Amino acid sequence: MKLKQIDNGFQLIQDAQILLSHTRENPAFFVGIGRENIVAYRGNFDIQDHLIERIPLTHYQLSDDHITLSYRQDTPPLLTLMFSLSNDHHLTLSIKNNKSELNRFWIRINAIEVEKVWGCGEQMSYFNLRGKHFPLWTSEPGVGRDKTTEMTFLSDKYNKAGGDYYNSNYPQPTFVSSRHYACHVNSSAYADFDFRNATYHELQIWEIPESIEFFIAPTFLSLIERLSLRFGRQPKLPEWIYNGIILGLKGGEENSFSRLEHTVNSGVPVAGLWCEDWAGIRETSFGKRLFWDWKWSKKRYPNLDQKIKLLKENNIRFLAYISPYLCEDGELFTIAKAKSLFALNSKKDVALIDFGEFNCGVLDFTNQATKEWFKKEIIHKNMLDLGISGWMADFGEYLPTEDLFLANGMSSTIMHNAWPPLWASVNAEAIAERGLTGEIMFFMRSGFTGTQKYCPMLWAGDQCVDFSRHDGLNTVICGALSSGLLGNAYHHSDIGGYTSLFGNRRTKEVFERWVDMAAFTPMMRTHECNRPDENFQFDHDATTITHLARMVKIYKHLTPYLKYLSNEAHTKGYPIQRALFLHFENDFNTYDIQDQYLYGSELLVAPVHQQAVQEWKVYLPADETWIYIWDKKEIQGGQAIIVPAPIGKPPLFYRKNSQWAELFDGITNIQ
Amino acid sequence: MKLKQIDNGFQLIQDAQILLSHTRENPAFFVGIGRENIVAYRGNFDIQDHLIERIPLTHYQLSDDHITLSYRQDTPPLLTLMFSLSNDHHLTLSIKNNKSELNRFWIRINAIEVEKVWGCGEQMSYFNLRGKHFPLWTSEPGVGRDKTTEMTFLSDKYNKAGGDYYNSNYPQPTFVSSRHYACHVNSSAYADFDFRNATYHELQIWEIPESIEFFIAPTFLSLIERLSLRFGRQPKLPEWIYNGIILGLKGGEENSFSRLEHTVNSGVPVAGLWCEDWAGIRETSFGKRLFWDWKWSKKRYPNLDQKIKLLKENNIRFLAYISPYLCEDGELFTIAKAKSLFALNSKKDVALIDFGEFNCGVLDFTNQATKEWFKKEIIHKNMLDLGISGWMADFGEYLPTEDLFLANGMSSTIMHNAWPPLWASVNAEAIAERGLTGEIMFFMRSGFTGTQKYCPMLWAGDQCVDFSRHDGLNTVICGALSSGLLGNAYHHSDIGGYTSLFGNRRTKEVFERWVDMAAFTPMMRTHECNRPDENFQFDHDATTITHLARMVKIYKHLTPYLKYLSNEAHTKGYPIQRALFLHFENDFNTYDIQDQYLYGSELLVAPVHQQAVQEWKVYLPADETWIYIWDKKEIQGGQAIIVPAPIGKPPLFYRKNSQWAELFDGITNIQ
Repeated sequence: MKLKQIDNGFQLIQDAQILLSHTRENPAFFVGIGRENIVAYRGNFDIQDHLIERIPLTHYQLSDDHITLSYRQDTPPLLTLMFSLSNDHHLTLSIKNNKSELNRFWIRINAIEVEKVWGCGEQMSYFNLRGKHFPLWTSEPGVGRDKTTEMTFLSDKYNKAGGDYYNSNYPQPTFVSSRHYACHVNSSAYADFDFRNATYHELQIWEIPESIEFFIAPTFLSLIERLSLRFGRQPKLPEWIYNGIILGLKGGEENSFSRLEHTVNSGVPVAGLWCEDWAGIRETSFGKRLFWDWKWSKKRYPNLDQKIKLLKENNIRFLAYISPYLCEDGELFTIAKAKSLFALNSKKDVALIDFGEFNCGVLDFTNQATKEWFKKEIIHKNMLDLGISGWMADFGEYLPTEDLFLANGMSSTIMHNAWPPLWASVNAEAIAERGLTGEIMFFMRSGFTGTQKYCPMLWAGDQCVDFSRHDGLNTVICGALSSGLLGNAYHHSDIGGYTSLFGNRRTKEVFERWVDMAAFTPMMRTHECNRPDENFQFDHDATTITHLARMVKIYKHLTPYLKYLSNEAHTKGYPIQRALFLHFENDFNTYDIQDQYLYGSELLVAPVHQQAVQEWKVYLPADETWIYIWDKKEIQGGQAIIVPAPIGKPPLFYRKNSQWAELFDGITNIQ
Repeated sequence: MKLKQIDNGFQLIQDAQILLSHTRENPAFFVGIGRENIVAYRGNFDIQDHLIERIPLTHYQLSDDHITLSYRQDTPPLLTLMFSLSNDHHLTLSIKNNKSELNRFWIRINAIEVEKVWGCGEQMSYFNLRGKHFPLWTSEPGVGRDKTTEMTFLSDKYNKAGGDYYNSNYPQPTFVSSRHYACHVNSSAYADFDFRNATYHELQIWEIPESIEFFIAPTFLSLIERLSLRFGRQPKLPEWIYNGIILGLKGGEENSFSRLEHTVNSGVPVAGLWCEDWAGIRETSFGKRLFWDWKWSKKRYPNLDQKIKLLKENNIRFLAYISPYLCEDGELFTIAKAKSLFALNSKKDVALIDFGEFNCGVLDFTNQATKEWFKKEIIHKNMLDLGISGWMADFGEYLPTEDLFLANGMSSTIMHNAWPPLWASVNAEAIAERGLTGEIMFFMRSGFTGTQKYCPMLWAGDQCVDFSRHDGLNTVICGALSSGLLGNAYHHSDIGGYTSLFGNRRTKEVFERWVDMAAFTPMMRTHECNRPDENFQFDHDATTITHLARMVKIYKHLTPYLKYLSNEAHTKGYPIQRALFLHFENDFNTYDIQDQYLYGSELLVAPVHQQAVQEWKVYLPADETWIYIWDKKEIQGGQAIIVPAPIGKPPLFYRKNSQWAELFDGITNIQ
């Protein structure tokens, strides 16, 4: 990469490619002033901007080590840019704002017509981002996420929760281009990355960002490696994960443990029992909700301490649930309030958030005392000391922008996106302080830049319990592929989906198709969904539990391979689930595929994600001979083929000359 | 009004009020560059802007007769403003653009917290515009117009036609403020008037407008008078209108004329028979559509020439229907194409628009030859010579912005909003050239600045056949009041509404409530709606036709009063249907009322616009004693009262000492 002076401007050049081009006529930088209006409702945000100024920085002045930019030659510079090349593949463009009122920034990155762009965190609807713009703001992901569906309409109407294609628990201002570069913006402000233009990508940030980084690499894999080094790598998977599935059950002690026993007796290998309701429950119109007071509920789980010990003796771990909030009617709230651990409102009271018929205080993790208290009193004492081996570290997306004051003095609007990794860090540090990193495992749906460093496992959030295009099974694949490019090696989802509303109910078919996919992800975990009684569950019929047992055995059978991948993730940052183009750069047909993935480099998985299908179309990348697992036939890559699609035989292929061929062949022997 | 220099800026002052205030810190003017993306689908437009620059014009320089504005003191001025006061109540701010690339303009008009704002053309959802922004772009008005309704959702999903609160056939960049001034922007570009801010109104225009006008007056009535003088006044109503109702029937000759006969025999006074299908029909999935080849269909109306003569002898006029388009499969299309009368696309072919399963050519009225041809060949020969006395001059909102070239060389994006008055002018001129102004009457839904001058009668467009808040009966009142403030004296609507889709069907109740309102509008006219066979019609049962007869008799009974109002409209520009505050300035309670109106100055009408109600709440303005028509009781104004709400007795009140009291009293004698 190098900075080159041209007529009337300058360019950032990599080989023959122009990444950035700034001239008086076509400036790459704009600054401005805007007044945003952000209205929050239960994690859904209506965000509008009133833009007051947008000034093209048409004039530039090049000095030895910096560039100043202004509107006109004779006006004082508004921005100072410093380009620093830390090595030949990593350039940082530091930005100094010389006018404090400025709070809007736009940069145009050069683009070419055929270019593809991926990333922007965990994107659920579109893997290739070209042709759309992506607001980047952590929030509820939406229910339906498609304004043409009844589900989205009703969710919007009754809960302001329908969402759209870009809503995500985990956005990140980072993208990867098919031109073998990545670009990252160092800012947690609201951003909107616009990939709709033929000749440029325009990144909008609601502050003047500290810096923008460019990464280049000769191959996509090495680019991913560099990004994962930049953002932080996850530990290896805990050994106990490989034992089988994690069963999500939340019916209280008797119910959960007896169902676990039945499941084990039915031949399903179980690695963990996950009881979200370990701290108790409450009833709301959305269904049963958890009681957000993070300690063992002796009422709901009278013998939990003993039960956890017994489980562990049988190689089954116990997992729990927490969020970064405490409900107003819980005991811990009173303690935390007395210790001034909450964020405050303008009346100096605890800032409360409505989570759907109950209010919670926002633990202020910008206050070191809050972090320490949460780690010690909740994670250490209430959880690890009880023998808990993992948990869902839920939420993190709700930080309000209005009337909320933080200990670090920063605006909550700027801290909103920073909250998920901050929340992840509380969990990761608590585990690390006990020396249990890589042994205790939590999983999160919310994320942002930095999540990679702290969060050992992503979970895809709350899909609808269906096959819908923008909120069903297939979106989980898109989420894994996009987040995987940015250094998140581990991804999984609620088997069967989560959200059952407005008459949408999980069917046996949805559940079984989801199992077929989950066997080829780093972690299998069920969830009863938000309305357990009205939705299909894994133990509702004998054929399903038999099917589940077989698929978990396949997952377990692949342990040596998964361990190898986990090691690779740890040392190189490669994701377990990979976009096809990561290994098939020369096959452009793979660049847009978002419903298939490579599981490691060797296995290709094409989950069936539609209702009532008998066969399934799969694209096999070129320059490889593929073995179709279920009949061992060889198929030449570079073509789309059709295979049968019975439940229990997900379209699955391996590379003919794979060193893992024998292991893969063993899959068909599993009953 | 005067321009006053202040520290670091200038102000436009009227009495003690600041209308415009420009300082370096808080500039009132901004200019910029944007690239719009406008996607049209059957009259519905998806409009997005990519804003590239927005420059605050912080620096100003005052000269004797002009002001120059620029971003910085030392840069060349971007705009030159010339303030010219044509008299003490009318100021024109002419604007000269000194940089041709600029295509965005913003002006901030001072505002105060308690201020109300009305106008912006014919607004169907909100009369007081404060608290919302109003994109101004003539289009289909939307079906449902409320994103929380099933109707809007389905219309959006299947036809991209749901619309929103601001969609209107007739927008206009003019508003009236409760501070006794009006502001008008001379531009037909897309505009967005934003009334959401406490201290300013921000008007956005997608070009640098030629000028902005301010009008002031001591009273609202005199302000309206001045506006109507500025935009042009309509002729008086034709005498024949007072004869009764205009019946909309479109079943072909036999059907239409026999139903007319039945109606007349049932005692309904009829002024006109309106057969939209006089030129023939076609079938589409939306229902029967008209055949857009504007000449007598001898197939559908074999004896129309004779029938029209017979009707006229019986004091009944015949009305027809035209639009500014010709269908591709019609005879006139071929002729107009040969004469090069159509707008062209980039291939120099006729630019076609999809109107819903049929394509039409856009007659290019910027070509004087097209106007002359249409006036002579269609309006004169095919219509007036046949004895037609009036027509619906439909559409005018569809001018595409892409791939359409006009004879006057102007961009179709700029001409889009200018199209409705251009279309109106073709009709008005054709009539004037025969000396028939005020005798022949056409009515239009589309409009823009200038419509006042040419269009003798507005019609409220296509409501749903229901009582819905944003697309039902009550929206017609809002449309009449808002357009009335800008000099459109005459307004009426399809009795019973028009749009029946997705299971929404017109009921007897909807029809009868609509009749109750229409009797107190300048023209009564029925419409069979888009699906006549599936919806309630006026002659579907005996009680309805009896009710209709009585209400039309009431309309007729008021002829002397309506003639007086029509004369007042002609000489002073007062609308027939008036916002309450026009006559009750001191009663601030009236400023937000949009579902009641004064019919002239003397009658107050509060149409019932909800389903299954037994009584109705009415606000009576202060400082007046009101007589409730149906029992003649006196009620003091300045309060809301509840009256019974049976069908046939719409809440109706007159001023106690009205010189028309005797006439009004006569209403109760009509059987």
